[in-house]
Amino acid sequence: MTATKAFAAFAATTPLGPLMIERRAPEPQDVTIEIDYCGICHSDLHVARSEWEGTVYPCVPGHEMIGRVTGVGPKVTKFQVGQRVGVGVMVESCGQCACCTSGKEQYCLEGYTGSYNVPDKRRGGVTYGGYSASITVHQHYVMRVPEGLDPAAAAPLLCAGITLYSPLKHWGAGPGKRVGVAGLGGLGHVGVKIARAMGATVVMLTTSQKKAEDALRLGAHEVIISTDEAQMKAAEKSLDLIMNTIAATHDYNAFTRLLRVDGTQVLLGVPPDGLPRPDTIRMLANRLSLASSNIGGMAETQEMLDFCAKHGVTADIELISIDQIDAAFDRMAKGDVKYRFVIDMASLKSMPFADTRA
Amino acid sequence: MTATKAFAAFAATTPLGPLMIERRAPEPQDVTIEIDYCGICHSDLHVARSEWEGTVYPCVPGHEMIGRVTGVGPKVTKFQVGQRVGVGVMVESCGQCACCTSGKEQYCLEGYTGSYNVPDKRRGGVTYGGYSASITVHQHYVMRVPEGLDPAAAAPLLCAGITLYSPLKHWGAGPGKRVGVAGLGGLGHVGVKIARAMGATVVMLTTSQKKAEDALRLGAHEVIISTDEAQMKAAEKSLDLIMNTIAATHDYNAFTRLLRVDGTQVLLGVPPDGLPRPDTIRMLANRLSLASSNIGGMAETQEMLDFCAKHGVTADIELISIDQIDAAFDRMAKGDVKYRFVIDMASLKSMPFADTRA
Repeated sequence: MTATKAFAAFAATTPLGPLMIERRAPEPQDVTIEIDYCGICHSDLHVARSEWEGTVYPCVPGHEMIGRVTGVGPKVTKFQVGQRVGVGVMVESCGQCACCTSGKEQYCLEGYTGSYNVPDKRRGGVTYGGYSASITVHQHYVMRVPEGLDPAAAAPLLCAGITLYSPLKHWGAGPGKRVGVAGLGGLGHVGVKIARAMGATVVMLTTSQKKAEDALRLGAHEVIISTDEAQMKAAEKSLDLIMNTIAATHDYNAFTRLLRVDGTQVLLGVPPDGLPRPDTIRMLANRLSLASSNIGGMAETQEMLDFCAKHGVTADIELISIDQIDAAFDRMAKGDVKYRFVIDMASLKSMPFADTRA
Repeated sequence: MTATKAFAAFAATTPLGPLMIERRAPEPQDVTIEIDYCGICHSDLHVARSEWEGTVYPCVPGHEMIGRVTGVGPKVTKFQVGQRVGVGVMVESCGQCACCTSGKEQYCLEGYTGSYNVPDKRRGGVTYGGYSASITVHQHYVMRVPEGLDPAAAAPLLCAGITLYSPLKHWGAGPGKRVGVAGLGGLGHVGVKIARAMGATVVMLTTSQKKAEDALRLGAHEVIISTDEAQMKAAEKSLDLIMNTIAATHDYNAFTRLLRVDGTQVLLGVPPDGLPRPDTIRMLANRLSLASSNIGGMAETQEMLDFCAKHGVTADIELISIDQIDAAFDRMAKGDVKYRFVIDMASLKSMPFADTRA
């Protein structure tokens, strides 16, 4: 076991603070990683503040980690000490089921082990995420980070990036396809970039004129202001696919109207209060689908990083120090971030720590 | 114009009764058909009793017609006098749009013309359906009925049959696939038969032990009693595809739980009060889709009839005379029909009619 500096939520309503945690003794296929950067996902906020069920305190969030390999077990074949690597939302899965053996570990039939706040099925205890100085992970759940990618700006690709890349690929985004992206936040802004890089015609759907301008700068070809009924009416049946990244309860049926026959709307936000009833009449009349999707498999996540390196795609980030997390959470709750906070983990490592082990 | 005996709804709450209607003068590509049998679809009840919006009285329902050709226009190439034919839900579409030119006339971008209760865009007036002695239809919207099919029992294939055949084919039902059918009514019972004929493993989902037995007789391989929580729990993640034919508001999310990763639930019932909010968390965790679908294209409907003839699939019907329609509607409203009423149109033709033209 290795004592490691971390930052944890201790309760739903109190600020995050320092906590010494133990990382497991490396196993033969384990990679030990010193974390340099960790993105702040909206999930971190939901979990730290107990907005979903099941937060176990103390909770160390973070599942968009970029770092360097500091140690490898004797059976590690994929990585070497010093290599730049990333860890995302998933740190383990059963490895045996139909999903795991077909590269869909994110749908592991036993349930994958998330990077934080879930039981470590094999070793006991709860997982601690990337708001920490280091982590130890089986090599299968570690990705190479290509040299061309800025490591801080690449961190959000490990969750936000793959969350968009996987459904865009699964539902066929590419040349000749008109892809809507609803919501311009952490997910949406990488969705715009990735869909564009895939060759699709990208249509931003937003309520905000300000975001419309940003979306065009980020790569959207067109923008529809979703509160403008005339624009929405004119855009009926014009999109093949919609990536809906809106994280608050809203009328997604308004977007369904924009789908062409055989179109699909993929619901990627997870509003704590859910979404309203579906417009099944519209779906029936045009053979439409509503779907959802969860991150991506390990090989696919590597493919996404390689794709992003090739196409120069990273997140637009605001780099913060570890003591700014609560302020960052507050700003995220108001949608005030362009477009992802990333923690510079040097600020944690240099912080004086009392040894307050969990 | 040709005066034709018909049976019409005159108001939402009064019995249907005789009405002389005018059929158009045949156009060059028109086929004139003497109707022998017409199935009673649940839509007929909804429209006749104004349970959906927009009923135009007098209303002549019926869109599951089987008859014989009695006349063909000079440009008709597909049909000859005396041939056994069918007409379904659609009697016209624009013929020009991307959907019409790709065999998806049911999703015509101009909106197809339904067989009854919708404006005839080209000629004015409203369309009158199959509760009548004859109909005149452009040859493109007329299907050959293979000799091997019992004409009365084949009538429901024109709506119920294609409503199941098209999505079963579109979403890949076949050998190696486990297909659930929820609800054993007019749609569900032909869904069981067609899915079985396609080679899928068919799993009936019903609340009723009595229907469970019927489903097995009709061809289902397995039955799950959906009110039995233990059975539902045991069947989690066991189905690739679900055809949900339930026409009343219900908890379709309970069926979502039965889908395997990448599974799709197709919502084919159209409950007047809609369906509850979707379980997007479950959908996200397993990349599930909710979809819907509307009848089929013309070539596909012909393919369905040929498929049914090859595999000996017809509906289980109760043949009634035209004066039993209201009693049949009442029984349908209670779900008391096994599994489709079909009107023997000889009973209309032999009825003495005052000439009460619409």
